[in-house]
Amino acid sequence: MNDIIKRQATASEEALWRIFTIPEAPDSTLSIIEQNLSQNLAGFLNESIVAVEKPLWQIERDFQAFQIPEQPSFVSDYTDTIMQKLVAHSVHTAAPSFIGHMTSALPYFVLPLSKMMVGLNQNLVKIETSKAFTPLERQVLGMMHHLVYGEKDGFYKKWMHSANHSLGAFCSGGTIANITALWIARNRLLKPDGDFKGIAKEGLFRAMQHYGYQGLAIVVSERGHYSLGKAADVLGIGRDMVVSVKTDANNKVDTAEMRRVLADLAERNIKVLAIVGVAGATETGNIDPLNELADLAEQQQCHFHVDAAWGGATLLSAKYRHLLAGIERADSVTIDAHKQMYVPMGAGMVVFKHPSTANVIEHHAEYILRKGSKDLGSQTLEGSRPGMAMLVHACLQVIGRQGYQILIDRSLEKARYFATLISHNIDFELITEPELCILTYRYVPAQVQKAMASASPEQLLRFNELLNGLTKFIQKRQREEGKSFVSRTRLTPARYQRQETIVFRVVLANPLTTEQILRDVLVEQDQLAQQDKEFYPKLLQLAAQQLHG
Amino acid sequence: MNDIIKRQATASEEALWRIFTIPEAPDSTLSIIEQNLSQNLAGFLNESIVAVEKPLWQIERDFQAFQIPEQPSFVSDYTDTIMQKLVAHSVHTAAPSFIGHMTSALPYFVLPLSKMMVGLNQNLVKIETSKAFTPLERQVLGMMHHLVYGEKDGFYKKWMHSANHSLGAFCSGGTIANITALWIARNRLLKPDGDFKGIAKEGLFRAMQHYGYQGLAIVVSERGHYSLGKAADVLGIGRDMVVSVKTDANNKVDTAEMRRVLADLAERNIKVLAIVGVAGATETGNIDPLNELADLAEQQQCHFHVDAAWGGATLLSAKYRHLLAGIERADSVTIDAHKQMYVPMGAGMVVFKHPSTANVIEHHAEYILRKGSKDLGSQTLEGSRPGMAMLVHACLQVIGRQGYQILIDRSLEKARYFATLISHNIDFELITEPELCILTYRYVPAQVQKAMASASPEQLLRFNELLNGLTKFIQKRQREEGKSFVSRTRLTPARYQRQETIVFRVVLANPLTTEQILRDVLVEQDQLAQQDKEFYPKLLQLAAQQLHG
Repeated sequence: MNDIIKRQATASEEALWRIFTIPEAPDSTLSIIEQNLSQNLAGFLNESIVAVEKPLWQIERDFQAFQIPEQPSFVSDYTDTIMQKLVAHSVHTAAPSFIGHMTSALPYFVLPLSKMMVGLNQNLVKIETSKAFTPLERQVLGMMHHLVYGEKDGFYKKWMHSANHSLGAFCSGGTIANITALWIARNRLLKPDGDFKGIAKEGLFRAMQHYGYQGLAIVVSERGHYSLGKAADVLGIGRDMVVSVKTDANNKVDTAEMRRVLADLAERNIKVLAIVGVAGATETGNIDPLNELADLAEQQQCHFHVDAAWGGATLLSAKYRHLLAGIERADSVTIDAHKQMYVPMGAGMVVFKHPSTANVIEHHAEYILRKGSKDLGSQTLEGSRPGMAMLVHACLQVIGRQGYQILIDRSLEKARYFATLISHNIDFELITEPELCILTYRYVPAQVQKAMASASPEQLLRFNELLNGLTKFIQKRQREEGKSFVSRTRLTPARYQRQETIVFRVVLANPLTTEQILRDVLVEQDQLAQQDKEFYPKLLQLAAQQLHG
Repeated sequence: MNDIIKRQATASEEALWRIFTIPEAPDSTLSIIEQNLSQNLAGFLNESIVAVEKPLWQIERDFQAFQIPEQPSFVSDYTDTIMQKLVAHSVHTAAPSFIGHMTSALPYFVLPLSKMMVGLNQNLVKIETSKAFTPLERQVLGMMHHLVYGEKDGFYKKWMHSANHSLGAFCSGGTIANITALWIARNRLLKPDGDFKGIAKEGLFRAMQHYGYQGLAIVVSERGHYSLGKAADVLGIGRDMVVSVKTDANNKVDTAEMRRVLADLAERNIKVLAIVGVAGATETGNIDPLNELADLAEQQQCHFHVDAAWGGATLLSAKYRHLLAGIERADSVTIDAHKQMYVPMGAGMVVFKHPSTANVIEHHAEYILRKGSKDLGSQTLEGSRPGMAMLVHACLQVIGRQGYQILIDRSLEKARYFATLISHNIDFELITEPELCILTYRYVPAQVQKAMASASPEQLLRFNELLNGLTKFIQKRQREEGKSFVSRTRLTPARYQRQETIVFRVVLANPLTTEQILRDVLVEQDQLAQQDKEFYPKLLQLAAQQLHG
């Protein structure tokens, strides 16, 4: 019965003792929900999350209280409330038809393992609160290092568990990973030298005075992730010093243009802190020519970082890992396990080519992270953090490299299938081909496409404006109806004179997404387009004028 | 039977489909473990974690493989393995006799809720992948803001859900919270001005040139957390510019000394970026005189940050919140929910007095975090991150303010009880009194205490050296034996001429720690002392010489 639970909802010492010692009764609301979750996660999510989207301002009505409630609540009452107000209006990120973002369905075994991780409540900052989790995390980083760099046995025997070295850093996500990499790059560049004790100790202002640079730059393609701007801000480099290099028709960085940019920076006495290669652009999935960037970084004698937060998992496919050739020349590489590695949210990593790379950010304290200890916290940006590495470890073992290869290969093939589907549909236009499992496209009625083919640049501009409005309308309406979801972004395709073009963006990493779902998405978008009373009719009218007027 | 599980361990498309769609069989190894965990977490931890510590180098033997396994593993086999190699050698952070760190037992309901959180797999960076979790997180931050600042209804109605404002930032832990606060302080200080576009855009070097400062300083007591040094490094200020001010006999910052430090910095044209108040020092639990620091910050016209990662939860007690008087004058306050708020690892927060404080770190991107959106990621250091705010929300509702008050008050009273116990035991010496539920002490045999009372400064030095060795020995041996755990740190007490003194450090936040356990800890330490063959006999000998020689 609910007796135990009911008795917990009084602010008494005995009631509190109970919530720390007596588990939920098996027939309590929360226990029953948990059982549903365990027996059928997809079913639970389908039933608990409402399909039709409620506007945010309506959802917000349920989150207005700003005072911590004085009295305790019954766990069962609380559970009822959040099922209705929170879970029902959360996002079904695991839905096979939710193909707009990088979250996917999860393998079942991560759920009980997550619960075990929470129950163990380790703190990875130091050995004293994590013990075996420390070598486990180091092993996961070693495996990811081997995946990227493939060093020999002796290398890992020597460094993987070495107290004053690290093959990488585990963190909450790709943003922290990128910041960590660039922090290291900055501190290595502005290292101690003569009287100067190094930037870590003396700061950036003294460092610049000592080395005599006029500025520092991070050079990356225009497809670089927004976290690089954040890193430049945090690290004191300045967002304006993330120098954006334009991309070619395939959304890969234009290396000739990068050479010009580098020459220009050198002339202005601006030192390049790092060249960043994009390996799986967030918006289009494309991979920069990493070998050429490695050459440029060598010439510049600067740090070479590869942001493979999304694309790094492709290294698990023997068939497609060649797409990232040159990544093994990077000084540091970011990979998110919560993206294409099917680990729950909160598992980012950066790996370092050289085991002593992170020494420039090493720090110690008296009661913790003592010198010579193997405490992981001495070389990470975060302090206290959970044992998420266990979930990556589990996925690597249970899925195995060959299992991952199948997942990666199928995702890519599914994206190619969808691209073909779009290309063959007369009312759609493929904007970017999938190099990995990301592609972009838009809805352009056949007669509009025909009219655009012979339009003047000015007319094209007008067509594109209307198409942008239509794409926005379709994407928003589709999301609200809750059957399926694609995201949208803005690109500047060369074929449209780099005009801002709004496109649908699709990420096909969910193994449960079927070809039928993809066909249905196009049918739905076609229907939605015709519900638009603003841009759709104007487009048809403009096309008619152009073709017949 | 194990059939389904067995079939999952082949790298085939069908097997992979199964791990994403078919849950663990109820009689599988992992399911059985999960049931144990649900029915009796304490029992599970007691049985699964071995008591006697295995040396790290032995544990590491099981984590030597550096290649991602080619073939998949059976979930049941994997589970068996980690139970033996990982879980058995993890740290029993919830044990009532584990009183050395800030992790505690957890309330039971957070386990099923964590599993739900993982199953929902929301990404809080933006509304599109978190929907109702966004207003939920804003509400949690609003409640914590109200706890600290207690603004009126209208304030929260206006700002709590406002798109371009935020009452705080949720993050993985106190380190990121402190970095966020100081990042904001730095960017507010070096803001756009005339031709200068601000540090966020132009970087620290140009900012210093523009404003004409010779350096920036963060002023904090010598008890300040090591994350402040990390922040100074990352933000380009330099670790040397964390100016450490000595503390008084109670480990609170000496404000007269701080005034001298501030005058000296002004003379050297070093601008104070922030004064940081410590509200619950990690090592001793003491709280700085926050009102005095607020006055100083006002005079300096600088940011006033309070690091209440540990002590902030004390605000939940009507009886003891006065200990933090003045915190409501801080521009920003760090509070960790995974410490004294009994939330699992990975729940840090920083709250801002003014809703527009974080605007100086605001950033946007095309496909995400569009301007005017309520995406939380536009004002946080992290990017993708999980829905941990739900667990804080749950604890606030289920435990309630009055429930928290009982937990906080009992912890403090337990610490006072232990302090009395130590004071009354002739073989122990209390080093720091508990202001919150942290205290430090050491083992000093009665005759040694007697001898020290009449010792010369040189002799005292020698006694202290030997005592340091003995304290280390006891702490290490106690940890290895696995019955109980206290941590150790190094202090410089005024009564020992600021000589480095190694002490036991105890944190009494676990509600399951009984007075009997505390009595047993002293008995155990007494016995362990006598096992030491190095420092203990020398101490007795030295004492005998001093007293009778």
